[in-house]
Amino acid sequence: MTPRPIDPPTRQPDGVAGLAPGQRVGRHAGPGAEADRLRALRLARAYLLRVAEPPAPALARFVAEHGPLVAARLVRERHLPADVAAETEARCGVDRAEADLAAAEAAGGRLVIPEDAEWPCWPFAAFDRATARGVTGTVAPLALWVRGPGRLDELAERAVAIVGARAATAYGEHVACELGYGVAGRGWTVVSGAAYGIDGAAHRGALAAEGDTVAVLACGIDVRYPAGHGALLKHVAERGAVISEYAPGTPPARHRFLHRNRLIAALGQGTVVVEAGVRSGAINTASTTVALGRVLMAVPGPVTSAQSIGCHELLRAQQAVLVTGVDDVIESAGQVGADLAAVRDRPVRRTDGLDRDELRVHEALRPRAGRPADWIARESGVPIARVRAALPILEQRGLAERCETGWRLSRSPSTRGGA
Amino acid sequence: MTPRPIDPPTRQPDGVAGLAPGQRVGRHAGPGAEADRLRALRLARAYLLRVAEPPAPALARFVAEHGPLVAARLVRERHLPADVAAETEARCGVDRAEADLAAAEAAGGRLVIPEDAEWPCWPFAAFDRATARGVTGTVAPLALWVRGPGRLDELAERAVAIVGARAATAYGEHVACELGYGVAGRGWTVVSGAAYGIDGAAHRGALAAEGDTVAVLACGIDVRYPAGHGALLKHVAERGAVISEYAPGTPPARHRFLHRNRLIAALGQGTVVVEAGVRSGAINTASTTVALGRVLMAVPGPVTSAQSIGCHELLRAQQAVLVTGVDDVIESAGQVGADLAAVRDRPVRRTDGLDRDELRVHEALRPRAGRPADWIARESGVPIARVRAALPILEQRGLAERCETGWRLSRSPSTRGGA
Repeated sequence: MTPRPIDPPTRQPDGVAGLAPGQRVGRHAGPGAEADRLRALRLARAYLLRVAEPPAPALARFVAEHGPLVAARLVRERHLPADVAAETEARCGVDRAEADLAAAEAAGGRLVIPEDAEWPCWPFAAFDRATARGVTGTVAPLALWVRGPGRLDELAERAVAIVGARAATAYGEHVACELGYGVAGRGWTVVSGAAYGIDGAAHRGALAAEGDTVAVLACGIDVRYPAGHGALLKHVAERGAVISEYAPGTPPARHRFLHRNRLIAALGQGTVVVEAGVRSGAINTASTTVALGRVLMAVPGPVTSAQSIGCHELLRAQQAVLVTGVDDVIESAGQVGADLAAVRDRPVRRTDGLDRDELRVHEALRPRAGRPADWIARESGVPIARVRAALPILEQRGLAERCETGWRLSRSPSTRGGA
Repeated sequence: MTPRPIDPPTRQPDGVAGLAPGQRVGRHAGPGAEADRLRALRLARAYLLRVAEPPAPALARFVAEHGPLVAARLVRERHLPADVAAETEARCGVDRAEADLAAAEAAGGRLVIPEDAEWPCWPFAAFDRATARGVTGTVAPLALWVRGPGRLDELAERAVAIVGARAATAYGEHVACELGYGVAGRGWTVVSGAAYGIDGAAHRGALAAEGDTVAVLACGIDVRYPAGHGALLKHVAERGAVISEYAPGTPPARHRFLHRNRLIAALGQGTVVVEAGVRSGAINTASTTVALGRVLMAVPGPVTSAQSIGCHELLRAQQAVLVTGVDDVIESAGQVGADLAAVRDRPVRRTDGLDRDELRVHEALRPRAGRPADWIARESGVPIARVRAALPILEQRGLAERCETGWRLSRSPSTRGGA
C-alpha cells in the first residue's frame, strides 16, 4: 500500500491561525513553498502530539495561541507557562517527529493536520463548543495519524458512530452488523473503535456493504490491536481510514481508550450504543456524545440480558433515543425532517373504516344461525334503524350475508376475535 | 364459593348525588332501610348497564343528572332526550335486572355500584378529568359485576396494569410473569385482561406470589373466556377479583375488548406493556393510559422480535418510559420520590479513586520488567515529580511493586485492558 499524496489545500483552513506571524506564507506562494510550509507544520505537530499525552488542554491552548511552529520551539526551549510546562515536562526531550512521520509512511499512513484541506473542522468544532459550555476534557486533537485512502472531511460529512460491548452477545453482534451494513449502504460512514464484539461487527457490516468505515484507535495506526483484528484493520484501511492521535508504535492503555472515545463521538453526527454493560467504555462514549451535543441512540435488547443494561439505563434516563434499525438511526442522526424513517406498514383488517355502530352490528352476527334485525339490535345495543342501514354495508363488504332466518356472518374468512 | 356479603357504606359515597329527591334515605336510617335502598339502586343500575351497550356517554350523563332510580324509570317510560333515546332504543324492552343479579350470585359474584363504599371513586375520577380535557369515550362504568373476595377500592389503591400481546414470545411471558410476581410480592395489585399470552402470565405471576390480582373481562363474569383460562379465572376470583361491566352471560366482542381496556388503564396507577405488535389491543390500552393521565411503561425486547415492535414504538415516541424490572415499575408507578428504584450495584475496580496521573502511571507499568521513574514519566507523559508521588500510592494499593530495576506492575491480579 502506498501513502496517499497530500492534497493541496483548496480553502484556507481554520488552522492557519496557528501560524506565527513571521512564518506566514503568502496565499499565492508557489507549490514548492506550500509543500515546505506544510512539511514544517507537520513536523511541529508530530513533535507536539508526542511531547504531551493527549488530550493536553494547556498545550492545545498554547498551540492555538502561538501556532504550532512557535509552540514547538517554545516547548523545546522550555519557555512555557506552568501548566504547559507540567504537561510537557516528562517528554520534552523526546523528539521523534521525523521518525514518527517515516514510521507512519512505512505503514502506509500519513499525518493529517488542521492546516490540511481534509481536516474535519466542522466535526471537531464540537470540542470548542463543549469547552465553552464548561465541559472539561473535550480537547480537539492537535493532528491525526491516518492510514487509508479516505479524506477525513468527506468521511465525516455523513457519519454515524456504532459502539458497544466487547463481550457482546450474538444478538448484539447481529444487530451491529446489520446497522453497519444498512448505514454504510445508504452512503453514511460507520465510525467505531475496532474492538472485539460490537465495534468489529459494525465495521464488518460496513465493509460488507462496500461502504465507508473509520476505525479510531487507542494505539498507533501501525499497532495490531486487538491482535485478532489485524485483517479487519487492513480492510478498513483499504476502504476508509484507520486513525489515531497516538504516534506510531504507541501501545494501547486504558486512559487512551477513554480519550479515543471522544474522537469517535465527535466524528459521527450521532452515536448508536448497541450493547453495553453497566459500566463500560461504550457508556463513556455515550456520555461524551451527549457532552458534545451529538445525538445519542441506543438499541434495546432483552431485559434479561446483562449486555443490554447500559442501553436500557441510557433510554430510561432519556439520555438516548431508542433505535430499532437503520431507518431509525438515519432519521435520528440525519437532518431534522430530511431523513424521516419510513412509516411502518400497518396490518389491514376487513373491518377497517366501519363506524362504531357498523362494527357492533358485525360483532353481533353469528357464523351460521341467521338472526332477524331486531334480534341484532338487542344483541348489539344499536337502534333498529341503524342496524337496518348497517347490514347492507356489511353485505357489500362481504362481512354479512342474508339467509332464510335473517342475517349471519359471511362464510368468507373473517377476522373476528378479541383484542 | 359464596357471594361476599355487601359491606354497609362507611362513608357517604359520591353516588348519593344520583338519588332523586323523593328517594333520598336519611343518613341515620336503620340498617334495613339502607339495605333496601342499596337493593333498589343495584336493580336500577343492573337495568341501566344492560339497556345500552357500555360505554354509553349520553346515558352516563343522564344517570349522573337524575340518579339511577329516576333515570331507570325514565328509560323504561321512554321520556328521554334524543341522545339517550338512541343509546337505549334497541334494548329498552329488555329488563333482566333481577335475573342478572341472580345469575351473578349463582356464579359467586355481585354488582358493585358507585353507592357502595368499595367503589373505586378515585381511580375512576380519571374518566371525568379526561372528559374535561376533551378526550372522548372515556366514560366511567355505571356499575361493575365482580367475582371475588377483594374490595375494589382497596385493590385499586396500589395497582399496576400489565398487558400485552396474546401471541407472546417465551421471552415476553417470562418477563410478564416475573413482573407480576414482583409487583404483587411488593403488595401491589396486578391488573390485566386474562387473555392468553402476556395477560395470563402476569396474573399467574401475581398468584404465584400469593398477591392480589384483578382480571377485567370483555364478557360476563360467568363466561369462561378464553376457554383455556377457566382455571386461571377461578384462581383470580379466589384471591382478588374478576370484574366486568357486561351482564352475566354476555359473550366477548371486539369492541368490548377495546372498551374494557379503559377500565384496565384506569384501575392501575400505571400500565406496563410487555410485548405488543404494531397494531394490537395492548397499544389501545397504552393510548387510553396516556389519555387518562396514567403512567405508561414499556418493556424493551430484541429489535429482531415482531412482538416488541409496539413497545419500541411507544418508547421511541417517548409516550412510554422504559422499564426493565420490578424496581423500575414500582418507581415509575409509585409516588414521586416514594418508591425509587434501588441503585444498581456497579462493578468495582482496584483502580477506582486514583487520579488521572496515578492512572496513567499505573498504565505505563510493565508486568515483569521493572522500569525507573524517569522511564515511567516519559512513557506516561506525567511529570517526574508526580510519578514519584504516585508510585508509593499504587504500591500501597497493591497495584505496583518495587524491584531491582525500578517499578513494575504488582503480581497480584490486576484489571488491565482496554475500554
